[in-house]
Amino acid sequence: MKLHHIGKVVSDMEEAIKYHRDTFGLEPLREPVIDPIQKVEVVLLDTGHGEEVPIELLKPISEDSPVSKFLKKGGGLHHLSFEVENIEQAVEELREKGALILGDVVPSKGNKEVPSVWLYTRSRELIELIEKDQD
Amino acid sequence: MKLHHIGKVVSDMEEAIKYHRDTFGLEPLREPVIDPIQKVEVVLLDTGHGEEVPIELLKPISEDSPVSKFLKKGGGLHHLSFEVENIEQAVEELREKGALILGDVVPSKGNKEVPSVWLYTRSRELIELIEKDQD
Repeated sequence: MKLHHIGKVVSDMEEAIKYHRDTFGLEPLREPVIDPIQKVEVVLLDTGHGEEVPIELLKPISEDSPVSKFLKKGGGLHHLSFEVENIEQAVEELREKGALILGDVVPSKGNKEVPSVWLYTRSRELIELIEKDQD
Repeated sequence: MKLHHIGKVVSDMEEAIKYHRDTFGLEPLREPVIDPIQKVEVVLLDTGHGEEVPIELLKPISEDSPVSKFLKKGGGLHHLSFEVENIEQAVEELREKGALILGDVVPSKGNKEVPSVWLYTRSRELIELIEKDQD
């Protein structure tokens, strides 16, 4: 697998973009998008590596967003996302290794709608898998 | 600034290397090193980007290591490290923006001994700055 992005959960998107720009000089790669499945607003920040390994800022847009609870505990560094060639195969392999798959494989709105899935690994680490963009 | 690495704090280095290999297929870039200043054992894992943006595994080797407290709270994702051209200048700029600098600029044993420093940004986010390797 290949590291795809680093997810951070934030309470205020405008303030988070300003903070990352002022502090580290990071700029958004694209305009914000809304992910209606995860109930988050998503902005990718260029970490100096172009399209590779951006920081993904996630702001819950609803109380029942999967990341709302994490925000209440303070937010910040949330997850690592890994790119795989075939997501169904990767899910099956990780399930056999003791991972707990959280929900279905769904399009990742913030990442060109490629198939993605959340899971807890056998060490109960929260991870996102994302299928390689075939374009 | 440019994202340099992602720090994770672990309790057992051998188990952590095995976990990252079995789960994600990540391999160490080099042999483990001991950092006597931070009182940690350090292993860098290739995240599929070669020398760029590795995962830095940190295992405290002493109760008074700066990361021991974090490990007691469960460990895991710990910090982002950013590369800068001139660390003294970056420290001064961030201090003016409200950062709290934690200790002195010291060689980063796990990262070719380039100058590095820990700080809390104005949002009280723990960050490591690391000077670009001039070799």
